[in-house]
Amino acid sequence: MIVVMQHDATPAQIEEVVRRLRQFGFDIHLSAGVERTIVGAIGDKTPAVIETIEAMDGVEKIVPILHPFKLASREIHPDKTVVRVGSVEIGGPEIVVMAGPCAVESEAQLLATARLVRAAGATILRGGAYKPRTSPYSFQGLAEEGLKILALAREQLGMPVVTEVLSPRDVELVAQYADILQIGARNMQNFSLLREVGIVRKPVLLKRGMANTIEEWLMAAEYILSSGNSQVILCERGIRTFETATRNTLDLSSVPVVRDLSHLPLIVDPSHGTGKRQYVPAMTRAAVAAGADGVIIEVHPHPEQALSDGPQSLTPEQFSELMASLPALAQAVGRTYTCPAPVHER
Amino acid sequence: MIVVMQHDATPAQIEEVVRRLRQFGFDIHLSAGVERTIVGAIGDKTPAVIETIEAMDGVEKIVPILHPFKLASREIHPDKTVVRVGSVEIGGPEIVVMAGPCAVESEAQLLATARLVRAAGATILRGGAYKPRTSPYSFQGLAEEGLKILALAREQLGMPVVTEVLSPRDVELVAQYADILQIGARNMQNFSLLREVGIVRKPVLLKRGMANTIEEWLMAAEYILSSGNSQVILCERGIRTFETATRNTLDLSSVPVVRDLSHLPLIVDPSHGTGKRQYVPAMTRAAVAAGADGVIIEVHPHPEQALSDGPQSLTPEQFSELMASLPALAQAVGRTYTCPAPVHER
Amino acid sequence: MIVVMQHDATPAQIEEVVRRLRQFGFDIHLSAGVERTIVGAIGDKTPAVIETIEAMDGVEKIVPILHPFKLASREIHPDKTVVRVGSVEIGGPEIVVMAGPCAVESEAQLLATARLVRAAGATILRGGAYKPRTSPYSFQGLAEEGLKILALAREQLGMPVVTEVLSPRDVELVAQYADILQIGARNMQNFSLLREVGIVRKPVLLKRGMANTIEEWLMAAEYILSSGNSQVILCERGIRTFETATRNTLDLSSVPVVRDLSHLPLIVDPSHGTGKRQYVPAMTRAAVAAGADGVIIEVHPHPEQALSDGPQSLTPEQFSELMASLPALAQAVGRTYTCPAPVHER
Amino acid sequence: MIVVMQHDATPAQIEEVVRRLRQFGFDIHLSAGVERTIVGAIGDKTPAVIETIEAMDGVEKIVPILHPFKLASREIHPDKTVVRVGSVEIGGPEIVVMAGPCAVESEAQLLATARLVRAAGATILRGGAYKPRTSPYSFQGLAEEGLKILALAREQLGMPVVTEVLSPRDVELVAQYADILQIGARNMQNFSLLREVGIVRKPVLLKRGMANTIEEWLMAAEYILSSGNSQVILCERGIRTFETATRNTLDLSSVPVVRDLSHLPLIVDPSHGTGKRQYVPAMTRAAVAAGADGVIIEVHPHPEQALSDGPQSLTPEQFSELMASLPALAQAVGRTYTCPAPVHER
Repeated sequence: MIVVMQHDATPAQIEEVVRRLRQFGFDIHLSAGVERTIVGAIGDKTPAVIETIEAMDGVEKIVPILHPFKLASREIHPDKTVVRVGSVEIGGPEIVVMAGPCAVESEAQLLATARLVRAAGATILRGGAYKPRTSPYSFQGLAEEGLKILALAREQLGMPVVTEVLSPRDVELVAQYADILQIGARNMQNFSLLREVGIVRKPVLLKRGMANTIEEWLMAAEYILSSGNSQVILCERGIRTFETATRNTLDLSSVPVVRDLSHLPLIVDPSHGTGKRQYVPAMTRAAVAAGADGVIIEVHPHPEQALSDGPQSLTPEQFSELMASLPALAQAVGRTYTCPAPVHER
Repeated sequence: MIVVMQHDATPAQIEEVVRRLRQFGFDIHLSAGVERTIVGAIGDKTPAVIETIEAMDGVEKIVPILHPFKLASREIHPDKTVVRVGSVEIGGPEIVVMAGPCAVESEAQLLATARLVRAAGATILRGGAYKPRTSPYSFQGLAEEGLKILALAREQLGMPVVTEVLSPRDVELVAQYADILQIGARNMQNFSLLREVGIVRKPVLLKRGMANTIEEWLMAAEYILSSGNSQVILCERGIRTFETATRNTLDLSSVPVVRDLSHLPLIVDPSHGTGKRQYVPAMTRAAVAAGADGVIIEVHPHPEQALSDGPQSLTPEQFSELMASLPALAQAVGRTYTCPAPVHER
Repeated sequence: MIVVMQHDATPAQIEEVVRRLRQFGFDIHLSAGVERTIVGAIGDKTPAVIETIEAMDGVEKIVPILHPFKLASREIHPDKTVVRVGSVEIGGPEIVVMAGPCAVESEAQLLATARLVRAAGATILRGGAYKPRTSPYSFQGLAEEGLKILALAREQLGMPVVTEVLSPRDVELVAQYADILQIGARNMQNFSLLREVGIVRKPVLLKRGMANTIEEWLMAAEYILSSGNSQVILCERGIRTFETATRNTLDLSSVPVVRDLSHLPLIVDPSHGTGKRQYVPAMTRAAVAAGADGVIIEVHPHPEQALSDGPQSLTPEQFSELMASLPALAQAVGRTYTCPAPVHER
Repeated sequence: MIVVMQHDATPAQIEEVVRRLRQFGFDIHLSAGVERTIVGAIGDKTPAVIETIEAMDGVEKIVPILHPFKLASREIHPDKTVVRVGSVEIGGPEIVVMAGPCAVESEAQLLATARLVRAAGATILRGGAYKPRTSPYSFQGLAEEGLKILALAREQLGMPVVTEVLSPRDVELVAQYADILQIGARNMQNFSLLREVGIVRKPVLLKRGMANTIEEWLMAAEYILSSGNSQVILCERGIRTFETATRNTLDLSSVPVVRDLSHLPLIVDPSHGTGKRQYVPAMTRAAVAAGADGVIIEVHPHPEQALSDGPQSLTPEQFSELMASLPALAQAVGRTYTCPAPVHER
C-alpha cells in the first residue's frame, strides 16, 4: 500500500509512520517529492492496518494497491468456476435460466408455474418461502410450508430449486429443502448470515446489495468462500440511483467487470433490476449479450393476482416468447442456450 | 390511493380495475380526463393491494396517498416520544451525547475511554462487541467478552451502554448486558432482526441504511413498533452518494423531515457520517443546530492504535473541546446541554 | 393533476385551492377520504401552475398525471422517428455505428482513424474540436482548425461527421462544418445552447446528463423540438452513481424505457459509459441486444498517445473485431448490421 | 503520481512506462512488490499525462497524489479569501445573508421583497432575470427587463444584487447591472461560461453542480481563477441522490471539507437544498453551525403566487423569524450576525 503524507507532515511524523509499518512487517520505500512524501509499504497487509496507519498524525490518505479479496480473485484462481446443481452447470457455455414466481403462494400456483417455465426453457425453479418486505403489513411468505411445496415441485418435475434464506437460524432448515440458497440484496452485508451459509455444503446465490460496490460484493463472497463454501454464484440485480423510471438501475457493466476480477459465475436478475415487466425482455437479452452466465426471471400465471412483485412478473406467454429469442442471441456471443421445442400441454 | 390508467386503456380494463378495488373494500371515485382515466380508491389499503392492482392490464401507475407507516407517524401520535434510559431522556429538551470507542478492545481501553467521555460530557457509553466488517479478515469484535467489559464499565461509572447486535440469535444475550440495542446501517432491512428486537423490552437505536430513504427507515421502525417495542431511537449516519471526500454523505435534512413525519427521537452520528475526525466537530454542531435530539460520537484514547475506525475517532482532547462548544449552541436553538465542569482527572 | 391536501387542511384552504384551480381553467373532482382530501384537476396544466398550487397553505403534494413532454412523446407521435444523415438512417432497422477519436488532434491522426473505422464498419465519423475538460490545464481541442480537419475527412471519405458544440456562440460555425451537432452530457440542461441548436436545420445528438432522469432528458429534447428542430437523436452515456469500477454507470434500461415513452431514435456510448476499453465490447453488444439504434465508440490508432480519453479508446484491431461480432447479434434481435468485408488497406 | 502496473505486466511494459514518464520530465522511483510493480513519478504532472499513461499496455491504474487544483488550494494560499461587495464582506467574521425571490416578476414584487428582506437582516438581494427551467413551457424570466428592475432596487435600497447568467453572450450585459454574477448548478461545468465570467471584474457566485464532487467544483472555480478573476464565492446547494423527501440532498459536510481544501468563501443555499420551505429554517441554522460564511434564501411576499419555486420560498414573516434566531447561533460558533432591530415599515 501507499501512504501519502500531508504536505506539512513533519520528519518526526514520517519517521513514526515508517517505524509502525516496519513493525507490521512491511518493507519500506520512501519517496520525498516536492510537495508530498510518499511511503510505499510492501508486504502482506490487512484492512485493519490500513485504518491504523490512516489514523496517524501527518497522514493524508492511504492508497491500497491490491484488491482486498483473495479467494474470489481471478489472479489467484484464473480458471472460471463452474457450479453444478443436479445436471445444470452454472458458469459453463450454456446460458442458465432460473424462473418462477416471486413468492410461493400455494401448491397449485407453484406447480402450475413450474410446469410452464420448464416447458419454456427454465432449468432451475425459483420461489420465495421467506419474503423480505419493506412493510410489516405485507405478505411475508409461507415459511416452512413454502419450502415443502418447493421440495414437492422439485420431486415432481425434477428441477432444482433456489430460495431465499433470511436468518442464520433458518439456514439449516432451508438447506434441507433447497438446492441453492439465495442471499438477498438487503442481506448482502449480513455477515452472520454469510458465515452461516459458508459452512453449508450447498451452492449460494449471492445478490448484489443495492448500495454496494462490486468490490464490496466480492468481499461478501469472500466471507462465504473463506468459511469453506466455494460454490458461490453472483447475481446482479440493480443498484439504487436517482432514476425512478425503473425500480433499480440494472448495472450490466458489472458483468464484464466481475469477469475481469473474479472467477465466480454471474447471473442477472432483470425482474428486480427494472421492476416493470415490459422492460424485462430487453434487459434479459442485454444481460446475455454482455456475457452473463444466466438470468433469473419472475414469472406468474396471473401477475395481477400475485401476492408480491406482480408488476415485474412476466406472464407465461411473455416468458415463452422471450426464451424463444435466446438461442440465436446466445450463439451470437459464443454461448449456447437450448430452448425446448414447444409442447402441447403449454 | 390513485390508480392512473394508461392513455389507451380500454373501458373493460377500467371496469375490471374498479371491480377489483370494490372487492378489496374501497370506495371508488372515477374521473375521466381528456388523456387519462383516474380511479380514486378510498379506504384502507395495504402495499400488497398496490402491487396487485399495479400488475393489472391497462394500469400505468399507482400513486399512494397515505404514508405506509402508521405507528411511527406523527399524524396518529402527535406528541414527541421520549425514550428513558436510566436517568437519561432521549427526545426531551436536553441534547444527549453518546460516546466511546468504535470497538471494545480491552477492559483497560474501554474503562479509560468511558472515564474520559463521561468527564467531558457524554451520558451514554458506546462500544461495539460484535463488529460488522466489510472484510472477513478484519477484527470482528470480542463478542460476549466485549459485552462483559461494557457491563463492567456501566457498573463502575454508572453510565448506560449502547452496543450493536448483528444476529437474531444474539439478541437475548446482548439484551442481558446492554441498555440500548443498536441496529446497524447494514441491518436496517434485516427484518428477522427487527422483529427480534421488537419483542425485547429495551430501547433500540435504529441506524438509517446507507441506501435507504427516510420512508423506508420509518418502515423499519414500524417493524419494531408493530412487534410491541415502542422505544425506538432513530439515528442518521449518512447515505451513500457519488461524493468520495467523506465516507458517507451525512443527510442532515433528515432531521427536520423526520421531525415532520414522526414522533420518534432522532440522533446523528457524525463519525460514520463523515469518516474523518477533522470534520466531526463541524457536523456535530450542525446536527444540534438542525434540531437533533443528540449525537453519537467515536472517541479513542489513541486513535492511531484503534482496531477499527481510527481515522474517524476523536482524541479525548478534541472531544472535550467539542463538548465545551455545545451548551451555547444548544441554547441558541432552544435546547439545553449541560457540560460538566472540567475535572482534575481529565 | 392530483392535489393531495394535508391531513389537517381546513375547509377554507381546500376551497381556496379549488377556487385557484378553477381560475386556471381546470375541471375539479373533489374526493374527501377519511384521512386526506384529494382534489383532482382536469385540463391543460403547466409546470408553473404545479408550483403555484404546491405553495398554497394546506397542500401536502401535487401528483402530475401526464408526462411533461409533448413533442417528444410517443403518445402524440406513435411512429418512430428516423433521422437521415446523408445515406445513413438513424432509427431504422440498420444499427448505426459512429466511431472516431475523442479529440481531433491533427489531420494525419483524424484521417488515419477515419479510414480505419470506415473499413471496419462505421458509417459516421466522430471527433471533438471543442473539448469540455474538467481541468483548465488539459488539452481543450483545436477549435475551428479541428472543424476544418473534420470537413476534410468527410470530403475525402464521404462519411458524415458528428462533433460537439459547447457554446451558443459557436453553433453557427460548427453547423457549417458538421453533419450532426452533439450536445454533451454536461450541457444537457444548458438551455441557451438547446434553444440555439433548435433553430439550426441539422440533426442534434443529445447526450443524457450524468445526473439527469430520463424524464429530464426528454424535456431537454423538448427544448430543441419546440424550437423547431425535429431531428433529435438521444444518446445514453451513463449516469453518476457510487460505483467506481467504471467511469459512469451505463443505464441500458433507458433503452427500453425511452422506446416506451418516445419516438426519438436512441444510441448508446459505451466508451464514456464504462471509461475502460476492456469493457467496451461487452457493453456495445449489450446495447444492441437491448434495442439501441446504434452506438458511438471512441477509437484511436495509438490510445497511449491520445490527448484525451486514451484509456477508453479501442485500438483499430479491437474495434474491427467488435464490429465483426455485430451482424449475427443484430440479426438475433431483429435488426441488421452490415459489416464490410475485410479490405487490404486495413 | 503513482502508476500501478498490472500483476502480469511484462518487464518491457514497465520499461516503456518508465521511459515515457522520464520523457515527460518525471523523476522515477521503481518499487517491485510481490504482486505488483509500482512506478512512482515525481514532478509536475498534468491530467493529460495521467490519461496518456493510463492508456499504456500493462498499466492497471494511476493514483494521483496532488489535488488537481492549484489557485483554489489552501496549500498555496493559506489565508482565507474575503470577497468585498460594496460594504459587505463575504468570508469575514460576519455571516452574510442574501435573500429575495427566485425570479424577478415585476418592479412592485421585487421592491416589496427587497424592503422586507433588508429590514429582516439580508444585506444582498437575490433575484433571477434569466431562469434555467426544466420545461420550455415554464416562465423563463424577464431577461434584460429583470436586470433593470434589479438595478433599480439596488439604487433605491442600497443593496448589492446577485443574479444568474446563463450564456456567455449575456455575461457583459448582466455584469453591467449585477454586483455578483451567479453560475447556476446546471452550468457548473459550462466551461465557456466559466471562462467568460473569469475575464469580468465582478465577484462570481459558483453553485455546486448537482452531480459534481467537491473536487470537480474546485476545478470549476479553477477555470474562473485561472482566467484572471480571483473573486469566487462557492455555494453548496445540494446534490442529487436517491432520497426524494427533499428536492436535493444538502451536503453540509462540504462546508468543513472545502474549508480544509480551499481558501475561497462558501455559502449555503437551503432553499434549493431542501425544496420545501418548512425545512429551510433548520438547514439555515445547520449551515451556520457547520461554519458557512453565509446563506442565500428564497423569500416571496406571496409564495402561492410565485412564478417559480413557490414551495421553497419563505414568507416574509418566516424569514424574519429565522433571521432573529441567527445572532445567538452565530456567536455560539465564533461568528457574528447583526440582525437589525424590528422597524415599523415591516
